[in-house]
Amino acid sequence: MTQRVVLAYSGGLDTSVCIGWIAEATGAEVVAVAVDVGQGGESLDVIRKRALACGAVEAEVVDAKDEFAQEYCLPAIKANGLYMDRYPLVSSLSRPVIVKHLVAAARKHGADTVAHGCTGKGNDQVRFEAGIASLAPDLKCIAPVRDYAMTRDKAIAFAEAKGLPIATTKKSPYSIDANVFGRAIETGFLEDIWNGPIEDIYEYTQNPATPRDADEVVVTFERGVPVAIDGRSVSVLQAVQELNERAGAQGVGRIDMVEDRLVGIKSREVYEAPGAMALITAHQELESVTVERELARYKRQVEQRWSELVYDGQWFSPLKRALDGFVNEANEHVSGDIRMTLHGGRAVVTGRRSGESLYDFSLATYDTGDTFDQSLAKGFIDIFGLSSKIAARRDLAQ
Amino acid sequence: MTQRVVLAYSGGLDTSVCIGWIAEATGAEVVAVAVDVGQGGESLDVIRKRALACGAVEAEVVDAKDEFAQEYCLPAIKANGLYMDRYPLVSSLSRPVIVKHLVAAARKHGADTVAHGCTGKGNDQVRFEAGIASLAPDLKCIAPVRDYAMTRDKAIAFAEAKGLPIATTKKSPYSIDANVFGRAIETGFLEDIWNGPIEDIYEYTQNPATPRDADEVVVTFERGVPVAIDGRSVSVLQAVQELNERAGAQGVGRIDMVEDRLVGIKSREVYEAPGAMALITAHQELESVTVERELARYKRQVEQRWSELVYDGQWFSPLKRALDGFVNEANEHVSGDIRMTLHGGRAVVTGRRSGESLYDFSLATYDTGDTFDQSLAKGFIDIFGLSSKIAARRDLAQ
Amino acid sequence: MTQRVVLAYSGGLDTSVCIGWIAEATGAEVVAVAVDVGQGGESLDVIRKRALACGAVEAEVVDAKDEFAQEYCLPAIKANGLYMDRYPLVSSLSRPVIVKHLVAAARKHGADTVAHGCTGKGNDQVRFEAGIASLAPDLKCIAPVRDYAMTRDKAIAFAEAKGLPIATTKKSPYSIDANVFGRAIETGFLEDIWNGPIEDIYEYTQNPATPRDADEVVVTFERGVPVAIDGRSVSVLQAVQELNERAGAQGVGRIDMVEDRLVGIKSREVYEAPGAMALITAHQELESVTVERELARYKRQVEQRWSELVYDGQWFSPLKRALDGFVNEANEHVSGDIRMTLHGGRAVVTGRRSGESLYDFSLATYDTGDTFDQSLAKGFIDIFGLSSKIAARRDLAQ
Amino acid sequence: MTQRVVLAYSGGLDTSVCIGWIAEATGAEVVAVAVDVGQGGESLDVIRKRALACGAVEAEVVDAKDEFAQEYCLPAIKANGLYMDRYPLVSSLSRPVIVKHLVAAARKHGADTVAHGCTGKGNDQVRFEAGIASLAPDLKCIAPVRDYAMTRDKAIAFAEAKGLPIATTKKSPYSIDANVFGRAIETGFLEDIWNGPIEDIYEYTQNPATPRDADEVVVTFERGVPVAIDGRSVSVLQAVQELNERAGAQGVGRIDMVEDRLVGIKSREVYEAPGAMALITAHQELESVTVERELARYKRQVEQRWSELVYDGQWFSPLKRALDGFVNEANEHVSGDIRMTLHGGRAVVTGRRSGESLYDFSLATYDTGDTFDQSLAKGFIDIFGLSSKIAARRDLAQ
Repeated sequence: MTQRVVLAYSGGLDTSVCIGWIAEATGAEVVAVAVDVGQGGESLDVIRKRALACGAVEAEVVDAKDEFAQEYCLPAIKANGLYMDRYPLVSSLSRPVIVKHLVAAARKHGADTVAHGCTGKGNDQVRFEAGIASLAPDLKCIAPVRDYAMTRDKAIAFAEAKGLPIATTKKSPYSIDANVFGRAIETGFLEDIWNGPIEDIYEYTQNPATPRDADEVVVTFERGVPVAIDGRSVSVLQAVQELNERAGAQGVGRIDMVEDRLVGIKSREVYEAPGAMALITAHQELESVTVERELARYKRQVEQRWSELVYDGQWFSPLKRALDGFVNEANEHVSGDIRMTLHGGRAVVTGRRSGESLYDFSLATYDTGDTFDQSLAKGFIDIFGLSSKIAARRDLAQ
Repeated sequence: MTQRVVLAYSGGLDTSVCIGWIAEATGAEVVAVAVDVGQGGESLDVIRKRALACGAVEAEVVDAKDEFAQEYCLPAIKANGLYMDRYPLVSSLSRPVIVKHLVAAARKHGADTVAHGCTGKGNDQVRFEAGIASLAPDLKCIAPVRDYAMTRDKAIAFAEAKGLPIATTKKSPYSIDANVFGRAIETGFLEDIWNGPIEDIYEYTQNPATPRDADEVVVTFERGVPVAIDGRSVSVLQAVQELNERAGAQGVGRIDMVEDRLVGIKSREVYEAPGAMALITAHQELESVTVERELARYKRQVEQRWSELVYDGQWFSPLKRALDGFVNEANEHVSGDIRMTLHGGRAVVTGRRSGESLYDFSLATYDTGDTFDQSLAKGFIDIFGLSSKIAARRDLAQ
Repeated sequence: MTQRVVLAYSGGLDTSVCIGWIAEATGAEVVAVAVDVGQGGESLDVIRKRALACGAVEAEVVDAKDEFAQEYCLPAIKANGLYMDRYPLVSSLSRPVIVKHLVAAARKHGADTVAHGCTGKGNDQVRFEAGIASLAPDLKCIAPVRDYAMTRDKAIAFAEAKGLPIATTKKSPYSIDANVFGRAIETGFLEDIWNGPIEDIYEYTQNPATPRDADEVVVTFERGVPVAIDGRSVSVLQAVQELNERAGAQGVGRIDMVEDRLVGIKSREVYEAPGAMALITAHQELESVTVERELARYKRQVEQRWSELVYDGQWFSPLKRALDGFVNEANEHVSGDIRMTLHGGRAVVTGRRSGESLYDFSLATYDTGDTFDQSLAKGFIDIFGLSSKIAARRDLAQ
Repeated sequence: MTQRVVLAYSGGLDTSVCIGWIAEATGAEVVAVAVDVGQGGESLDVIRKRALACGAVEAEVVDAKDEFAQEYCLPAIKANGLYMDRYPLVSSLSRPVIVKHLVAAARKHGADTVAHGCTGKGNDQVRFEAGIASLAPDLKCIAPVRDYAMTRDKAIAFAEAKGLPIATTKKSPYSIDANVFGRAIETGFLEDIWNGPIEDIYEYTQNPATPRDADEVVVTFERGVPVAIDGRSVSVLQAVQELNERAGAQGVGRIDMVEDRLVGIKSREVYEAPGAMALITAHQELESVTVERELARYKRQVEQRWSELVYDGQWFSPLKRALDGFVNEANEHVSGDIRMTLHGGRAVVTGRRSGESLYDFSLATYDTGDTFDQSLAKGFIDIFGLSSKIAARRDLAQ
């Protein structure tokens, strides 16, 4: 019986060529699987037919947009997931959901191998293969670009030689990965880190410097979940999509950074994630209002580790799962409204209100109604600082 | 011999009244000490004369702007000091330098007590008293507003009754603390956290929404220290001042947040810190280029704890000092240039270059010249993920 | 209507005197509540009658031993709760369960105040009052020793003057707090930290230096919970009690330390906790076998913070509750057997077995059957160390 | 010109065979380098001659015992370096000092490659190769056992065929690595983790269960450095050696654990490290007396990360170096005497005294002389617990 390989298929040149390349390299049949995580572009049906036309024995297409938003983007919002405090983990989040469907297809079609189109120097190869190893440790992984030396030039030659129904025009200057949570752009001239980005590379966001009217939005959360925008109920997917539109129109969510890859190198990355950044901004602020100080302080550390794990491809790891336990507990009271002004590249919070608020006007005010007992302060200060004072007597006293 | 109290004197109504109030409450002589940390306003000489006119037996005025920038703001820049990831510790940084001069004056004038004008529900009382306890554990601390019930109304009545040379007009609606590193604004209508700030409250920053031309700036760091702007050598003080002007003119550095005070309550705070935010933004980015990944990951935790300690008044604590050891070591190679565009309320990095860069074009590029050995990736991925894979075999395998 | 005060009552001299002392100081009626957490000594009925004889209007006695073991000691076992890596939180754990019953009694008897017998320089006052504030923020707290200057000498005089039915013999040289999870000893001569403890102070443990035969025990855990000893099913309470006996007989669990109190001072403390230390030792080892590396590494930090929070009286705090979420998740697979030799003051693990083990003989062995693919190592090493290597090229290369 | 390989040479069968094996596999000349880190056994001169007799073109032997103790063991003592809270990093510490001498020899003898005898599934290969990559990124690394399939059986056959002057008796059942800081034992029957160790495997420690008289020792530290034992000045090396003898004679320092290797597997390891464990125990206790609470709490986290980094072969990494900055700062006041009783497998602290002590008898005592102001406690408790109390009002109030 012929062995089968499940291929993560995008519909583009590289993975279209992979179908035949893998077949030739391994003698196996290739099952193409395309997962829609909101990357836009062609319809799933077009993609499915192309896979078959390029030689796949089977082609599966999955609309995973809601699943992606609900089960992968939402935990990131709850964790304020920002790698290096900046990158909202766009591609990192999509890999696990794609992996899940690749494994399901491998089981369904009796494949013993999964293939993906990643190179050998990026993060995504790790995310795919660590994910596969977690959900299906018996499956092998191959990456034709990395393992079978399938360069771009060779891919074009292969496509032309085999007459594959895919454009082999000169490569776009930009290397893109997109999904509903954001869009990543790499390109040759940005590899010089003294060069700034140009407007040309952006699709999700308008130029923030262009004069336009501001947009005011109110986002409502229940237990950390965005549930309404301007009073209208939304799913997580709809919340991200609407804010992609509205925050994107104001130039919100552009990120240009030098990033520490898991494989040990620093790389220049440009992202645009208007919906993600607007939602995380709102969520953080609502936490400031509803989460107790010590829990909030500790959660920052948890968020950092959570983000590193997800970035590093450890979505299914035991530690990531245990941190989720903490994050969910911490979101139990993160309910309420955040009002933001979207304008000029910024999502600026201007108001917060919550039935779960820990902000207590009568304790905070300096006006009439103050209930804070200031006579307690002296005792607090003296004992709070006592251990340090005893040390200072030894180390510093003048 | 009459006892003496050293008073932290600002020249304003409250501390002007404190001079006589303390004298009446304690029978002691009051020595007024005013420290210029860049708060602006009246000249030190005017302030000195007012203190004496209000009854101080001695009045010391100190220009501590350079000392403040060099010894207090600079460590904060190196530590990317942002409390709750947002507040650049403006007032928190100024208290220790003021404390240092209060202690010196107490020693010089033979005082056994230090007085400050803080209330009993804020952070600054802790910062003053913990600082005094560290540098001079034998000195007592008093706070007339907190300890002797010196309310605003009583202060006005006292000033008028005694004919003090200080205006007793109705209180400004805003409670302000300012220094060269930033400005803090509290006010009654902002105590309703659903209300947004109004333009009226800002002084260091222009409205970011006003159309204007962008400003491009290059900041040069050596070992974490900002040493030049656009190629001109600057002191740390000059760097902060110039960027206060230039970033402030573009509306950069406004912060509006609900903050966890050390005394256990949440409070609404508005800040503007254009120079501080521009410098920290540039410093963070230069760290991304010059600091190794694991050191960078760990430094984030250190930065958070450092910021909490400084916010909590623990500037002189043993832990803060040990963290400084770490932070200084981590800044050893943070040298190079950062180019930023200041515009529309944002300081956006557009370029980085450094002789200490760890960004290696030949490892990062996908173009000709790539030296990264992709054949190593498979072994890395398999072993990097092995402990998680073994657990997944038990917990998740499908 | 007369106000009522609920008093945490031990049956000893101090709290017996408190009944009348509080009544005189406040005019309130006193309701005595005694909670049995395994401290041993007199029967609950004797204690109840004495409270009434000393003037309490009501007296409640509660056998909370099982509740204490199940809901307070067990989370500590799961978290390997050791303050400063050494102290198994004996008294820290008992305060919250006592608080719970004090609050229940206050509700039942219509009291508006809770009283306890702690001094003003220890940790327990914080644990009681922070606990009360959490469960019943409307209740007031008083501590006669601290707040009404009730010294030991005055208490003896009071008891004799009122003819209270309680011995007023000279104070024992030792200050003791005990429960089923351990026993704490403070005493005058130990306040000189150069003095070593003497045998006289111990009750739960025999002299470890006395020659005797070793005892071998097998403890079985399910999801972190000790469920059997030597194959016999036990409750958590029974597990602690049996190991108190058996480990105590071998001198296991003595701790002599200089401890950082929450109130800022260092104090000398001696503890004996044979059951607690044996169970935590076994639990830690079973975690080594069943918990994945990165989860285990992170859990150590969580354990430290958990222990600090519990020590600091923050049992009911939001952060403690969120950490419990993490700890419980991490214990999901901590099931299996640990064999220990109890002897000479040590509980030494000699064997582990588990159906959830992540120890994989075929990967670990150097003998026949080795399935580890050593060819992967080179790629792993090169990429794992790459970021550090790039930095070393700049910093260290010779 | 013939290429040269520097080989880490132990004098044993494996590395003796490596000399010829490498020569045959690569055509290079082999320079043998043996580093004495206190492993005992044959003299350096015997080892040097054997290397030459086995075909090395050059043989270097280095007595690095003092350097190892001073520059590698001492930082571990200051950091209380215990991987998984238990393993004092014995082999992990020796690899960097060996690496340093291998690199020096490579430079001296013009070698372009370094070879070591490690397998492909342990930690030591990483420690060697990451160390080499740090100090000399241009050098290549080879491991004949891993890279050239040099199994034990093949090595014996090779030695016999070539008539090498080395015993080829059947392998000892134990795989040992030793240095002055401790000794590691792996062996076939211990790979069954239900089996306990037998007395036969130990060399540094006597059976703790054997009745004998206790030994009392006083260790003196200055700034974290052990400088005297029982009043006699010692070097770090002498301190470790004397305590190896004395603590070893009492059975102190045996460790039996399931350990998380860097390569992702769990392995069973047995160690004996009497001097290391006695010194770390004493150092920890002296820190309890001389280090301020918050610094001490944070240092535990730093110690854990430090230990993980050293275990993981990251001795020369930027993060390890920055953590050393913290650790050294934290040891500035760790000076004084610790008295311990060594007996029955335990090193038990019985006394501490220090001119830098933060233990303040007058604050700690409950007897006459108490200077702690208990009236401050109420204010402290109320404000310390306020943020949690506000949350509890929302979440828990009954």
